[in-house]
Amino acid sequence: MPVLTTRLTETLQIARPVVSAPMAFAAGGALAAAVTRAGGLGLIGGGYGDAEWLAAQFAAAAGERVGVGFITWSLARTPSLLEGVLGHRPAAVMLSFGDPRPFAPAIRAAGARLICQCQTLRHVQDAVEAGADIVVAQGSEAGGHGASRGTLTLVPEVADHLARHAPDVLLLAAGGIADGRGLAAALMLGADGVLMGTRFWAAREALVPAGHQQAILQTGGDGTLRTRVPDVVRQLPWPEPFTARVRRNAFTERWHGREEELARVAATEAVPYRAAGEAGDADNTGVWFGEAAGLIHAIAPAAAIVREVCEDAEARITAAAAGRVRRP
Amino acid sequence: MPVLTTRLTETLQIARPVVSAPMAFAAGGALAAAVTRAGGLGLIGGGYGDAEWLAAQFAAAAGERVGVGFITWSLARTPSLLEGVLGHRPAAVMLSFGDPRPFAPAIRAAGARLICQCQTLRHVQDAVEAGADIVVAQGSEAGGHGASRGTLTLVPEVADHLARHAPDVLLLAAGGIADGRGLAAALMLGADGVLMGTRFWAAREALVPAGHQQAILQTGGDGTLRTRVPDVVRQLPWPEPFTARVRRNAFTERWHGREEELARVAATEAVPYRAAGEAGDADNTGVWFGEAAGLIHAIAPAAAIVREVCEDAEARITAAAAGRVRRP
Ligand SMILES: Cc1cc2nc3c(=O)[nH]c(=O)nc-3n(C[C@H](O)[C@H](O)[C@H](O)COP(=O)(O)O)c2cc1C
Ligand SMILES: Cc1cc2nc3c(=O)[nH]c(=O)nc-3n(C[C@H](O)[C@H](O)[C@H](O)COP(=O)(O)O)c2cc1C
Repeated sequence: MPVLTTRLTETLQIARPVVSAPMAFAAGGALAAAVTRAGGLGLIGGGYGDAEWLAAQFAAAAGERVGVGFITWSLARTPSLLEGVLGHRPAAVMLSFGDPRPFAPAIRAAGARLICQCQTLRHVQDAVEAGADIVVAQGSEAGGHGASRGTLTLVPEVADHLARHAPDVLLLAAGGIADGRGLAAALMLGADGVLMGTRFWAAREALVPAGHQQAILQTGGDGTLRTRVPDVVRQLPWPEPFTARVRRNAFTERWHGREEELARVAATEAVPYRAAGEAGDADNTGVWFGEAAGLIHAIAPAAAIVREVCEDAEARITAAAAGRVRRP
Repeated sequence: MPVLTTRLTETLQIARPVVSAPMAFAAGGALAAAVTRAGGLGLIGGGYGDAEWLAAQFAAAAGERVGVGFITWSLARTPSLLEGVLGHRPAAVMLSFGDPRPFAPAIRAAGARLICQCQTLRHVQDAVEAGADIVVAQGSEAGGHGASRGTLTLVPEVADHLARHAPDVLLLAAGGIADGRGLAAALMLGADGVLMGTRFWAAREALVPAGHQQAILQTGGDGTLRTRVPDVVRQLPWPEPFTARVRRNAFTERWHGREEELARVAATEAVPYRAAGEAGDADNTGVWFGEAAGLIHAIAPAAAIVREVCEDAEARITAAAAGRVRRP
């Protein structure tokens, strides 16, 4: 697939320019391993950090070459977690939502690639200073935590910044990419590949309750919002400027805009919130997916997702160059 | 340029799949005519509607084939404006921000193409029902008024909707497109062309104070926000869900988040707001551009913009198909 041969595939020695996002709770070892086996690179979602869970997920990856990601401000509270994880010899460690600089030396010393997810140009400067091998430019369309920039403008602006200040740093686009159209667009914008979360959240191998996965099939891209309410109810101290993109549901309708009130009753409200999460109830808890929901029409195995996204992207680029850009 | 031959160029009989946005106050006849002469289609910004200004701008277009756009909820307050404008025989009439259905019959009867700008799938359904010839899927990155969806997910989702329910309706992508990368990405996402505002706001022919145009050259994509404050100070009754994307400046820092207070003192605050607008002061008034600011590095003639955007898009698509997608 020479069309999809990029600096990313060459540097990481992978067949396809697709990385799966380290989604907290949802991206376990089975998903990451399946993405790697399909020719991409899979990342385990280290999230807020739980050494036992992480050990189990590396075991589930069964020796496939996978990486892992952390929520940086949370890792800063238990930095010892990193050492344990580096013992699993991850191919890459992705850091998001906080200052990567304190952790970069250990990651690079362990021979893992450092991936930094960025939501603003300022974050990109910090990532470059930390010595990132790969920067992920994440737009607001993304499922889960993120900020306000759109993927369509952030990616080329970051590409220009890197071309000027750090030309060897690779660039992934993230936020709203779920099919071959998104991958092809990301390459046009100057990315070397994509990081996809929501699409893999809807993969067979994801650690997501069936009821939540069914909900994405019935939700369009207008059916999500950015809000702080899932973090408020869980009493998680997420810093500015990050908010969570989740499904619009009874829980968000009830509390979005009433964050101060929710904060006061969080301990009580967290009980039904967590119960609904465990029961796969998609209405009374945070259901973590992004605007790409409107582009997802089936729960599929991760390998099929990787293959379809890449084959479609290649076909679209080839057709466009031949003067056939009309919609099917 | 067969690569950029799309259903849009064929249907409108234009050479390049680029339409300039009908930006209120900023897009006059000279800009629209220059875009048309360069092979695209230029639209005059009818905005809130001012018959005299519109007559002058159609005169300034000097017989070039141009179209015009209106803010629909405002047009509904003086519907007679439409008749006057149709007398200028516009090639197209674009309606945004309100229900297009009451105006569609007159527009189509006059032989003008009906373009409807949409921010949600619900808007697209209304546009199709109105008999739109062209739907613009506008993402939140856009300068000026808009809503919350990202361009990267909205465009393919609308493309799927149209393919299924109204396959003859053409699709333009808008919001954050300012260079060849954005045009190439839009085509990959399934659009037949692009509508660009911010890039043409920074064109020589735009009716924009020099001080404001200088400000865009110094502002990155992180330097804008979506807010209601310019509408609150002007006492304009913009309906939900629309907000304005403008430059972050002293005015927005002062009032964003304090909308109720601003509403109470709007009559007083409007005086310095308007004065700063007229003086070209970019700090104390609404400065109307989008996230694409970070991709704009020169004030250029509209013809050069159209040409460069198209040539670069074509080069990128061709290079990608040949297996050369690396960043320059
Ligand atoms: C369920 C879910 C959980 C996520 N958790 C994390 C996380 O723990 N750490 C992180 O860096 N990003 C996380 N993200 C964001 C992803 O890294 C990525 O930016 C995002 O999924 C890309 O946008 P997309 O969802 O539209 O593909 C999460 C995303 C989702 C959907
Ligand atoms: C200065 C300015 C004024 C605008 N005024 C209008 C308007 O009056 N009517 C309208 O339909 N859209 C208006 N828009 C939005 C454009 O139609 C278009 O959606 C937007 O410019 C596209 O995004 P971009 O600015 O990133 O190119 C305006 C945009 C700008 C930048």
